[in-house]
Amino acid sequence: MENLTQKILKEHLIKGELKAGSPIEIRMDQTLTQDATGTMAYMQLEAMGVDQVKTDLSVSYVDHNTLQNGFMNADDHAYLQSVAAKHGIYFSKPGNGICHQVHLERFATPGKTLIGSDSHTPTSSAMGMIAIGAGGLDVAKAMAGIPYRLTMPEVLEVRLTGQLQHGVSAKDIILELLRRLTVKGGVGKVFEYTGEGVKTLSVYQRATITNMGAELGATTSIFPSDEITKEFLTRQNRVKDWQPLAADPGASYDGLVEIDLSQLSPLAACPNSPDAVKPISALSQIKVDQVAIGSCTNSGYEDMMKVANVLKGKTINPNVSLVISPGSRQVLEKLIETGALSVFIKAGARILECACGPCIGMGQSPKSDGISLRTFNRNFYGRSGTLSAGIYLVSPETAAVSALTGYISDPTQLDYEDTFTAEPIFIDDSMILPPSDHPEDVEIIRGPNIKPLPQNTKMTENIDKKVVIKLPDNITTDHIAPAGAKVLPYRSNIEKLSTFVFMNNKEHFDQICKANNGGIIVAGENYGQGSSREHAALAPMYLGIKAVLAKSFARIHHANLINFGILPLEFVDKADYDAIDEMDELEVVNVPGLYEQPIIEVKDLTKNKSFKATTQLTKEDLDILMDGGALNYIRNHQ
Amino acid sequence: MENLTQKILKEHLIKGELKAGSPIEIRMDQTLTQDATGTMAYMQLEAMGVDQVKTDLSVSYVDHNTLQNGFMNADDHAYLQSVAAKHGIYFSKPGNGICHQVHLERFATPGKTLIGSDSHTPTSSAMGMIAIGAGGLDVAKAMAGIPYRLTMPEVLEVRLTGQLQHGVSAKDIILELLRRLTVKGGVGKVFEYTGEGVKTLSVYQRATITNMGAELGATTSIFPSDEITKEFLTRQNRVKDWQPLAADPGASYDGLVEIDLSQLSPLAACPNSPDAVKPISALSQIKVDQVAIGSCTNSGYEDMMKVANVLKGKTINPNVSLVISPGSRQVLEKLIETGALSVFIKAGARILECACGPCIGMGQSPKSDGISLRTFNRNFYGRSGTLSAGIYLVSPETAAVSALTGYISDPTQLDYEDTFTAEPIFIDDSMILPPSDHPEDVEIIRGPNIKPLPQNTKMTENIDKKVVIKLPDNITTDHIAPAGAKVLPYRSNIEKLSTFVFMNNKEHFDQICKANNGGIIVAGENYGQGSSREHAALAPMYLGIKAVLAKSFARIHHANLINFGILPLEFVDKADYDAIDEMDELEVVNVPGLYEQPIIEVKDLTKNKSFKATTQLTKEDLDILMDGGALNYIRNHQ
Repeated sequence: MENLTQKILKEHLIKGELKAGSPIEIRMDQTLTQDATGTMAYMQLEAMGVDQVKTDLSVSYVDHNTLQNGFMNADDHAYLQSVAAKHGIYFSKPGNGICHQVHLERFATPGKTLIGSDSHTPTSSAMGMIAIGAGGLDVAKAMAGIPYRLTMPEVLEVRLTGQLQHGVSAKDIILELLRRLTVKGGVGKVFEYTGEGVKTLSVYQRATITNMGAELGATTSIFPSDEITKEFLTRQNRVKDWQPLAADPGASYDGLVEIDLSQLSPLAACPNSPDAVKPISALSQIKVDQVAIGSCTNSGYEDMMKVANVLKGKTINPNVSLVISPGSRQVLEKLIETGALSVFIKAGARILECACGPCIGMGQSPKSDGISLRTFNRNFYGRSGTLSAGIYLVSPETAAVSALTGYISDPTQLDYEDTFTAEPIFIDDSMILPPSDHPEDVEIIRGPNIKPLPQNTKMTENIDKKVVIKLPDNITTDHIAPAGAKVLPYRSNIEKLSTFVFMNNKEHFDQICKANNGGIIVAGENYGQGSSREHAALAPMYLGIKAVLAKSFARIHHANLINFGILPLEFVDKADYDAIDEMDELEVVNVPGLYEQPIIEVKDLTKNKSFKATTQLTKEDLDILMDGGALNYIRNHQ
Repeated sequence: MENLTQKILKEHLIKGELKAGSPIEIRMDQTLTQDATGTMAYMQLEAMGVDQVKTDLSVSYVDHNTLQNGFMNADDHAYLQSVAAKHGIYFSKPGNGICHQVHLERFATPGKTLIGSDSHTPTSSAMGMIAIGAGGLDVAKAMAGIPYRLTMPEVLEVRLTGQLQHGVSAKDIILELLRRLTVKGGVGKVFEYTGEGVKTLSVYQRATITNMGAELGATTSIFPSDEITKEFLTRQNRVKDWQPLAADPGASYDGLVEIDLSQLSPLAACPNSPDAVKPISALSQIKVDQVAIGSCTNSGYEDMMKVANVLKGKTINPNVSLVISPGSRQVLEKLIETGALSVFIKAGARILECACGPCIGMGQSPKSDGISLRTFNRNFYGRSGTLSAGIYLVSPETAAVSALTGYISDPTQLDYEDTFTAEPIFIDDSMILPPSDHPEDVEIIRGPNIKPLPQNTKMTENIDKKVVIKLPDNITTDHIAPAGAKVLPYRSNIEKLSTFVFMNNKEHFDQICKANNGGIIVAGENYGQGSSREHAALAPMYLGIKAVLAKSFARIHHANLINFGILPLEFVDKADYDAIDEMDELEVVNVPGLYEQPIIEVKDLTKNKSFKATTQLTKEDLDILMDGGALNYIRNHQ
C-alpha cells in the first residue's frame, strides 16, 4: 500500500528509512542546471575533479541571461557550452527554451529522479517522477555520483474531484492551494495528486501545478503517470520512456487536501506574495498597464493555444503592453503551424524570445506604479525590476482577457472556444548539443566574467560577530541575492555579486560586513524562500557571514547555508527574536557541542543576556559546517 | 534640367537659394522620432508651447529601449504615448517595429520631406523623398512649424549600371561606396542614385543603401520614384501616395560616382569603422561566434526571405549564436505566412523582438574577444556592449552563410535560390495609435525617469576654460554619449546620463568637468559622426562645456552643438591641434566678434601662445549661441 512518492524513492534509496522526518539519501538519475546557477555548479564539479558525470543524463540549459547586456552573459554561455562538452553533459543553447519546459518535453521520464539547480525543477514531476530543486552544489554532487541527502518529507494527498469550468485554469488550482496553505504550507512536504480530477488534466496542466508547488515551499509535487502521460510522450516520440505509475489503492498519506475542480473560480496572487490570493471578481476595478504571458509556469503549447482562443480576431486595449514568451522553440514552431502566433501578432502582442525573460526581471519591467498581470509563479517585491509596480499572478486565460479590456477581468465572463487544434508533432533537438566524443580535446573557455570560486575558512569553536542585519518574516532569495538585469550577469563573479546583497533592504550591506569582519544575520519565519540560488548563501559567505539565526528556514536555502559553511540556527523561543537589535554583538558558544545535542547557547554581549537556539543538522551536516562548507569537506575526504 | 534633389527641395523652399554651400530653409512635411531621442524632442516641443503639431504627419516610434530593464523605459513609453495623444502625433507602440522600416511601409511618400531624430532617417528617401536625420530639437522645431535650416548640400550622382550577381547584395553597394569614399566622403552631400542599375533594385534594396548612406556622413541619399516604388506602395495599399519622380534627363550634378553592379563582390566593414571595408574572400579564416540579422539596414521582407533561402533545410554551426530581428510586425507576419520563420527556427536561429536590439547594444553583446557578423550599419568601438569584440558589417546573405559554416563565408560560393515567394499583402496599423480627438482631456504621464530639461546659461564674451579632454579623429556620438543597455534608459534624465559621457575614453569625465567648472573639448577630424542623438551635445552642455575645438565636424552634431549653446570652432591651421595638451587653459577671445568675421583668436594661457579658429555659422546660429541655445532663443523671440 505505497503511495507513488514512496514507490519512486524506494527504487532510489541508498541510505535511511522512508519515514517522514528521517534523513535519507537517494540516487539521482538526472540533473539539470540553468545558466544563472549553472556556472557555479560546474565550477564546483570541476573543483571536485570529476571527469565525466555519473548520472544517466545531465543537461545544462541557458534560459535566464538571454538578453546579454554586456560580455558577461556570453562569457557564461561559452563556459557552459565548453564545460558541458568536456564532462559528458548535454547543452541546450540559448534560444532553445526554458529549462523546465524543454526538460518536460524531451527528458522527463516516469519513475526517474531529477535534481536541478532551479527551484522550479518539480515541473517535471508532472510526468510521474521525483524532481527536486536544490542548490548548485547539491546538483554538482549528484553529477559526481554522490547521493542526495534530504529529510524524508511528509506525503500529502491532494485529491481532485470534478472538472474545471470554462475560464478556470490549472493555475487556479495551485493558487487555491496557496490561498489555503500559504507559502510556508508545503515545507517538508510532497504534494501527491490523486482522484478522478487528475484524469481531466493534461500533462501541461499538471506541470503548471507541480511547477508552482515550489511556492508552497514543498519538496516536490507529483502526478501519476497514466494514459495522458503516454499520449504526451508519444507526441514527443518518447513512448519508450513511458510506464504506468500510481499510488497503490488505499495507500496511506500524512495528510489530505480535497479540491473540487468544478467549484473553483479564477484567482490572482496579489502583490507581493504568491499566497496573497483573491478572487478575480474582487479585482475588477484595477486598470492594467502590462500583461506578460509565459515563464516555466504557463508557456506550454496548451497555455498558448488558450491565449490564442481568447485573442482570436481581437486587438488588445491600446494602453496595455502585452508580451508573450513561448516556453520553447518546439512550442513556438507549433504556434506558427496552428496559426496561433499570427493571432498573437494581429492582436498586438509583442513576441519575446523563448526564455524566462520578465519572470526573473530580465526585461519588461513595468512603468513606475504600473500594474502588471503575469502568468508567472512569483511576485516578490522588486523581482519585476520596478519596486513600485503591482504584480498579480494569474492564469493565461485571465491574462489574455485582461489584455483585451485593460482591466483585471474574469475569463469565465467571456465567450471563447475551449478546444483547439490537437498538438502538432514537431521534434527538434538540434539546439541540444550532445557532449563531445573526445572530451580530452575540449578546452574550457573562461572569459573575464568567470571568476574562481571563493573559498571559506573553517568554522571556529565560538562565533563572535555583530548582527549586521535584522530581517522580518518571509525573506526571499530575491532579497538576499537579487535577480534582474542589473545583477544576474554577475552570477559567475561572487565578489561583484556580493555588492548587491540585500540591496533593497539595506544600502551598502557589503561594506557593513567588511567593516565588521563579517557578521550574523537575524531573520523571522521562512527565511530564504523562493529560488534555489546558492548565491544567496555563497555571497553572504564571501562577506564573512558565519551564522543565520531565524525563526524558521526554507528547505533549499537551509541546505545551501550548510553547503557553504554558514550555521543555520533557529530560535528555541521565538520571542527572543524581539530582543535583538541590529549591531548587537552575539556570541554563539561552542559550535562543536552541536554534535552532542541540538541546542546551543547564544549570548547577546551587547544586551548582556543569553538565549537558546537549535538546529536540525545531521552529523554529516556538522562535519561539512566545521570544514567551512561542502567543497572543503569533499576535498578533505577524498 | 533639375536633378531630383533640387526638384523636391524647390517645392519645399522657404528661404535661400538652391546653390551648394548656401544657407536654405525648407518646409518639413513629416517628422519622426524614436524613444531614445524622442523624450527630449517632445519635452522641447512642450517647452515651445505648441498645442498641436503643424506638420502633415508626425510619428513617435518606440524601437530602441524595448528590453525595459528597470522602470525607466516603461516610464519613457508612457510619457511618449501620452504626449503624442495630446499634441496630434501618431504613436507606434513598442513591438510594432523599427521606425525606419515602419515609416517606409506606412508613411514614406514620394516628393515629400521628412525630418527625424535618428541619423538613419534617410532610409525613407528610398521612396523618392527627402528624408534627413537631425537632432531632436530640430525635429521639435519642425513640429512647431519652423522651417528646417541647413546648408544646401552638393548633389552627387551615383550612376548604377549592370546588375547584382548571385550572392551579392545591396549592402555590398553601400559598403563599396564606403570603401571608396570613407565615413567623411559624404559630408555636405546628397547622393542621388541614377542609371539603368536602379531599375534592378527593389525598394528594400534601395532602402538599405539610403539607410547606410548616413555612414558616409551624407545629408541624405535619394532614389527616383518609379514603377517599382508604385508596386511597393500598392502592396501597402497606398498607391494613392505614389507619383513618378526622377531627375530631368541631362540634369547636372556636383560630381559623379559610377558603380557597375555586375562587378561587385561581397564585402565586409571590419572593426571598428563602417569604412574599414575588405572583400569577404580575404576574411575566410575568421571564426564566427555570433551572427546578428536585422536592424533598420537589413530587416525588410526581402532581406529576411534571402536569409531563409540560405538557411532552408540546414542547421547552423553549433558554435554560432544566430539572432534574427525582423524589422516590423508586418514583416514578421509575412515570414510566418511564407514559412520563412519556421525555416529560421528549424535552422537554430533565436528570434528577437521587432526592434533595433543588438545594433544599438541593447542586448546580444558578444562574448569577450568574440567575433560577430552583423547586417547592421555601425561597428563603432564599444557599440555592441563588448569592448573587446570584433564586429563585421555584412549583407544578410553573407551573415546567413557564415552562420552555417561558422567562418566568415562568401555567399557567391553557395548554391541557394535567388527567388522567393512574392511579398504577401498584410497591412495592420493597430499598433499605431492615432492622436486623441480630445487632446484637452489627455494627461501627460511623467514617471520619475522623466526629468525636466536642463537649461543653459548665456554665452559669455570670452570663454576661459580648461581643455578637459583631447580626442583623436572620428570620435562618434557613441563615444560622447554612449548607447547600450546600461546608458540608454537614462536618455530622459540628463543629470544621470552626464555621468556616462566619454566613459570609454576617460574615466570620471563628469567629475573632471565639475571640478573645473566646465571646460572645452579638443578633437580631430569628423567630430561627432554617427547617431543624431542630441544628448551628445546636451550632456556636455549640462557639464558646462562651452566650446568644441575640432579639425572638422559631422553635420548633425554641428547643428546639435549650436542648438544647445556650445560653440563649434575649427582650427584654421590643423597643426595647432598638436600643440594643445589636456588641462591647458584656453581663452576664446571675443565670441561676439564672430558676427563681423568668421575668424576668432584662441589663447593657450598655459602655453602662452595663441592661434586662430574659424566657424561656419550664420547670423541666426550666432544669435542662438549667444542666447545659450535654441530653446532660450525661441523663448526670447516669441
